Amino acid sequence: MGEERRLRMGMVGGGPGAFIGPVHRIAAEMDGRIELVAGAFSQSPERSRQAGETFRIHPSRAYADYRQMIAGERKRPDGIDFVAIVTPNHLHLAVALAALEAGFPVMSDKPATATYQEALKLEAAVKKAGLPYGLTHTYAGYQMVREARAICAAGSLGKVRKVAVEYFQGWLSRPIETTGHKQAEWRSDPARSGPGGAIGDIGTHAFHLLEYVSGLEVTAIQASLRSVVPGRKLDDDCNAFVRMNNGAAGALACSQVAAGEMNELRLRVFGEEGSLEWRQQDPNRLIVKWLDKPEEIYHAAAGYLGGDAKAVARTPAGHPEGYLEAFAVLYREFADALWAWKRGGTASLPATLPGIEAGVRGMRFIERAIESNRKEGWVEF
Amino acid sequence: MGEERRLRMGMVGGGPGAFIGPVHRIAAEMDGRIELVAGAFSQSPERSRQAGETFRIHPSRAYADYRQMIAGERKRPDGIDFVAIVTPNHLHLAVALAALEAGFPVMSDKPATATYQEALKLEAAVKKAGLPYGLTHTYAGYQMVREARAICAAGSLGKVRKVAVEYFQGWLSRPIETTGHKQAEWRSDPARSGPGGAIGDIGTHAFHLLEYVSGLEVTAIQASLRSVVPGRKLDDDCNAFVRMNNGAAGALACSQVAAGEMNELRLRVFGEEGSLEWRQQDPNRLIVKWLDKPEEIYHAAAGYLGGDAKAVARTPAGHPEGYLEAFAVLYREFADALWAWKRGGTASLPATLPGIEAGVRGMRFIERAIESNRKEGWVEF
Amino acid sequence: MGEERRLRMGMVGGGPGAFIGPVHRIAAEMDGRIELVAGAFSQSPERSRQAGETFRIHPSRAYADYRQMIAGERKRPDGIDFVAIVTPNHLHLAVALAALEAGFPVMSDKPATATYQEALKLEAAVKKAGLPYGLTHTYAGYQMVREARAICAAGSLGKVRKVAVEYFQGWLSRPIETTGHKQAEWRSDPARSGPGGAIGDIGTHAFHLLEYVSGLEVTAIQASLRSVVPGRKLDDDCNAFVRMNNGAAGALACSQVAAGEMNELRLRVFGEEGSLEWRQQDPNRLIVKWLDKPEEIYHAAAGYLGGDAKAVARTPAGHPEGYLEAFAVLYREFADALWAWKRGGTASLPATLPGIEAGVRGMRFIERAIESNRKEGWVEF
Amino acid sequence: MGEERRLRMGMVGGGPGAFIGPVHRIAAEMDGRIELVAGAFSQSPERSRQAGETFRIHPSRAYADYRQMIAGERKRPDGIDFVAIVTPNHLHLAVALAALEAGFPVMSDKPATATYQEALKLEAAVKKAGLPYGLTHTYAGYQMVREARAICAAGSLGKVRKVAVEYFQGWLSRPIETTGHKQAEWRSDPARSGPGGAIGDIGTHAFHLLEYVSGLEVTAIQASLRSVVPGRKLDDDCNAFVRMNNGAAGALACSQVAAGEMNELRLRVFGEEGSLEWRQQDPNRLIVKWLDKPEEIYHAAAGYLGGDAKAVARTPAGHPEGYLEAFAVLYREFADALWAWKRGGTASLPATLPGIEAGVRGMRFIERAIESNRKEGWVEF
Repeated sequence: MGEERRLRMGMVGGGPGAFIGPVHRIAAEMDGRIELVAGAFSQSPERSRQAGETFRIHPSRAYADYRQMIAGERKRPDGIDFVAIVTPNHLHLAVALAALEAGFPVMSDKPATATYQEALKLEAAVKKAGLPYGLTHTYAGYQMVREARAICAAGSLGKVRKVAVEYFQGWLSRPIETTGHKQAEWRSDPARSGPGGAIGDIGTHAFHLLEYVSGLEVTAIQASLRSVVPGRKLDDDCNAFVRMNNGAAGALACSQVAAGEMNELRLRVFGEEGSLEWRQQDPNRLIVKWLDKPEEIYHAAAGYLGGDAKAVARTPAGHPEGYLEAFAVLYREFADALWAWKRGGTASLPATLPGIEAGVRGMRFIERAIESNRKEGWVEF
Repeated sequence: MGEERRLRMGMVGGGPGAFIGPVHRIAAEMDGRIELVAGAFSQSPERSRQAGETFRIHPSRAYADYRQMIAGERKRPDGIDFVAIVTPNHLHLAVALAALEAGFPVMSDKPATATYQEALKLEAAVKKAGLPYGLTHTYAGYQMVREARAICAAGSLGKVRKVAVEYFQGWLSRPIETTGHKQAEWRSDPARSGPGGAIGDIGTHAFHLLEYVSGLEVTAIQASLRSVVPGRKLDDDCNAFVRMNNGAAGALACSQVAAGEMNELRLRVFGEEGSLEWRQQDPNRLIVKWLDKPEEIYHAAAGYLGGDAKAVARTPAGHPEGYLEAFAVLYREFADALWAWKRGGTASLPATLPGIEAGVRGMRFIERAIESNRKEGWVEF
Repeated sequence: MGEERRLRMGMVGGGPGAFIGPVHRIAAEMDGRIELVAGAFSQSPERSRQAGETFRIHPSRAYADYRQMIAGERKRPDGIDFVAIVTPNHLHLAVALAALEAGFPVMSDKPATATYQEALKLEAAVKKAGLPYGLTHTYAGYQMVREARAICAAGSLGKVRKVAVEYFQGWLSRPIETTGHKQAEWRSDPARSGPGGAIGDIGTHAFHLLEYVSGLEVTAIQASLRSVVPGRKLDDDCNAFVRMNNGAAGALACSQVAAGEMNELRLRVFGEEGSLEWRQQDPNRLIVKWLDKPEEIYHAAAGYLGGDAKAVARTPAGHPEGYLEAFAVLYREFADALWAWKRGGTASLPATLPGIEAGVRGMRFIERAIESNRKEGWVEF
Repeated sequence: MGEERRLRMGMVGGGPGAFIGPVHRIAAEMDGRIELVAGAFSQSPERSRQAGETFRIHPSRAYADYRQMIAGERKRPDGIDFVAIVTPNHLHLAVALAALEAGFPVMSDKPATATYQEALKLEAAVKKAGLPYGLTHTYAGYQMVREARAICAAGSLGKVRKVAVEYFQGWLSRPIETTGHKQAEWRSDPARSGPGGAIGDIGTHAFHLLEYVSGLEVTAIQASLRSVVPGRKLDDDCNAFVRMNNGAAGALACSQVAAGEMNELRLRVFGEEGSLEWRQQDPNRLIVKWLDKPEEIYHAAAGYLGGDAKAVARTPAGHPEGYLEAFAVLYREFADALWAWKRGGTASLPATLPGIEAGVRGMRFIERAIESNRKEGWVEF
């Protein structure tokens, strides 16, 4: 693996003011497998150029439009190897389709698309293209999430009976979408965000984490959505009951009006013999509680961890890894999958890396939650 | 106040093997206002005598029956001043009625009765008797719960928008009610516990804490109850949505099959400007988070606390107070109310001490939760 | 044991404004073995009478002087069974000697006396009298301190190599002894406190906890004392190196000018295989960290704890016990020892309850620390 | 700044098995200002080539010797812009001198050299060369360390009276240097590590953090060093008293035999009005405690933070940044300083970035600590 050159990435979205563009750049490049060489960072040519400068890529490769980028890069001998999509949600489908059509693998920010119908369309396109498609459900990249997943898979907790996941933020406690806050603006605009507000932006993360770690599937949901801030067009607070395919049940909650919270994503899984708990804001610890034994704290990079966790550790125990490192794990796995594919392998991703199936499932979750809220009752998945 | 003698307490229930009898004894006596002098600790005369010895009361005052105790104590010049009820739920009503009828004020463990109908009956009896009636919703006695309540009342958080309360235990993860565990036995027997399992045993605490701290009332609930352990006759796990009388909404959850949890009662209240969080297992801290300021930790007995909190502090900041101290706060307030009443005052309790209204409300909560679960939808309060 | 009446306690000190008097009263009475019936609470008759009222004892038993109390109580058929000493340090010796001489067992607040010389004198008197003498090193009464002690005794951590104990408070950050603060006044007055300031008031607790838990003895110390607040007559901040009798070494620190700290007593013991950590402000957890295994959290009242811890639990796991409960454990053990002695047993205390040996050792610690500071070098014990 | 190309870095050290090489690579490249293009990764040509492959640099630029690298790169039109030194300590001086002599700025891992005498030599060389020289005291790159530093500088805590810093690890609890552990091997070998063991490896970090945050200087030290593991040639455990130039005093401790600890670096600074506390293993929070106000928790990336902290935030509040991000902050500041210098500015670094003065001071600390231990008494700085 060592001798292969770095994969070349073209980014769509991520222009000035975007939070997630630089995050993708750092994450993609962190492990030395990828470099950002081109981008259509903004629909404004001027802003795209500016972003290109910030990213220190050649001016000729800061495109004003993703179609131009795809066309331009296809012609270059040193053209990009894949496309990273970091636009607002409503553009995800179009960009992904264009990239796939042009033969470029795709690494996309979540959610996969703006609607469930779009997601089905994209799924078909990915399958047809036979190209790798990855989805950056960031939290799946955390080392201790990998350990939690392995613990569930091993059955150490006994049969899972109860789950609880919540994702609380407070940054939309005020109507900042009306005062020029770019992030808030598109996220609370149904035309750009899709039909889900908090449920789409962060509820999908909670949903994915729940299924990813527990190894279970949600089979039914009852959700109660609210738009707490007056005038807001999309939901900003949600409580839901969920039922899992093994008979377990539990709660899923998300909010962007939980004033005082920053990014409180927290998962708990309760089995017959014990339970585990992970918090994104304290990511290098995994708490495991037992019926008959002392509570345990598993620490990132410790020698006693399982293989999945160890595989993604970069620094020794006690040297905190964070959000960017988790993100980079996904890019690293995507790069390795890409190389394998380029060497003639399949387009499939490792089980640890979310792909189009997770994308479809996330969009289904949004759609089901909204439907449940509408009819004030349970809906099947 | 200083010169008054200690009030004399007669206890019903709390015999050998009971957890809550010794707790009431310690709590009642802690602040030097009350002493346990008589009891009908068990329906077995032999066991009641044993308990009397443990409590070091005179053998002649360890009665085999609460009716005997009431009759016997009425005749004594040094007879009891009030009755404490610590039996399983199904006996609460009968004992309370007998005590009130005989002119004895009552301090009762929660829930007030076994059913909502009984609670209404008891409420009428309390009003008719004109006697003080207190309910030991223990957690209301914690210093930082008092502070949280004062913060909400002062409106510092802005309008409350969202609430979340949960009470998770794991001790019923196995069917220990079938193996001779006394506590588990009556709690999972509808005939002794009433129609609610976890929802009655600990859900009522969560419900009370929510209303007590927020100063709001629940107006509607949708609850989903389960009996997770095979063969269990009552619910052992519950998730609920709640709506509050100011338009806020949120979640209430309780479980006794949350394997690995001990006594995790946790309340969060989110307002427009910030939020507060309190955990029973870390009771001397109150966390307050703000939209625009650093998070704050309020510590028990600190000089900056409000009057309600300070009034119940016994030791300087940094000297932890716990469950027994919280319990004792309620008995202390009850004793003070009793003296005031004896001196010719009304039978009313201070606003900080739960009484029959809280009791009726708690039973209404259980009844509404079960009804909601039955019809799988929202029910009004 | 059950049938024995409560032991009668006479208190010396603890008048109005004292913090520790009510604490001793609550602790002594908590477990139903002892009742406060008499006292010489203050050297002012009026204040002693006031305190007596607060404690609800008979006016005739609120004495103006400890000698009067001892004389008066000896004559009564229902006289006291033992004397509790809660005065400022300089009175400890005189009161203890008078009590012992009159045949009364003694339970004393720490430190045992004001100076090391006095402690030796007291030790001789205790031995001569053949009476139980207990010392309330409160922190020894915490359940998880007992568990920590048992873990060290069992050798689970391997040979102990390194220790670290600190006791930080901030309440003397300002010269409040000059503004009428009673607690601060006598504690910073060499005539009443003895030659040690922080080192005597809280350093002794740290020292005792270290030896008590580790099972080791300090053999040498180098201490650096400071009086940080201008004008203060005694030390208010201390750092020390210590060497233990098994070759381990470490640090002991205490301060009363650690602004912002409340009562931060924290002990760590490091062995070859792992370490343990206990914090007084989070007393119901014991942290055990291993070289090759996940970190463990032991919780108070859990089923997996050892016998010494379980013996002192009052409430189920998850129901916090605190400072008063720890204090009460010592009184409970003292009461049980007293009964055993009254039934003809020896005057010896259980190994878990600090007595005169701990008292002498604590005074030796203060004396050695001051001597080391004076000569700026190591001193042997 | 945007349009400048990435600076080219040549690394010395960091071959296979080294922990710190990849860390420097990731940190240097994270913010898009630097790329690793050449290296003399190992003294074995084969291993250097292997490392080069891992880092995906051109085989012709994986040198077998730092002298070859310096010579080779000087000749290239696209040669390196600076040298990063990540070798064991004993090589730091020679490599740095060679680089400076050849006109290359230097970014060096700490400690600056193997001995204090070497540090003075290097300081002279840096000054003579007039080239930027940076030192990667990683912890200085943490956002909340910057905030803590700003709080001290602003005087919010009042005059600093007391300090406490400790750095505890447990990974050398066993004699792993004798079993082929590369990291342990050179660190416990005086010939490669210098005269300090733990005191040099991590004590220097603690020392630097203390001075960096408090803005004070250590003026005297008394240190007690031990080699706890039998046969170990260097100290693995240290306790020290320190005196600061404003009259404050305190304790500094470090250990690599604190079994169970991972990387517990913790600083506390106590002033007249309050104190602050920062832990490397929980790096995104800064705890500030006050005499008269609630404790505060400052969170990374929060809007209320000062400019120095905000300047180094990459992700929004609640998205943890860790060790690599802190490291990268230093490289970012070094890169910016390098560009400024290339544009004709001075070789000086910003005050937030440790340089040769910090390097000399760290070596002085080691030398003074060892001297103090030798004579068992205080030594002046």
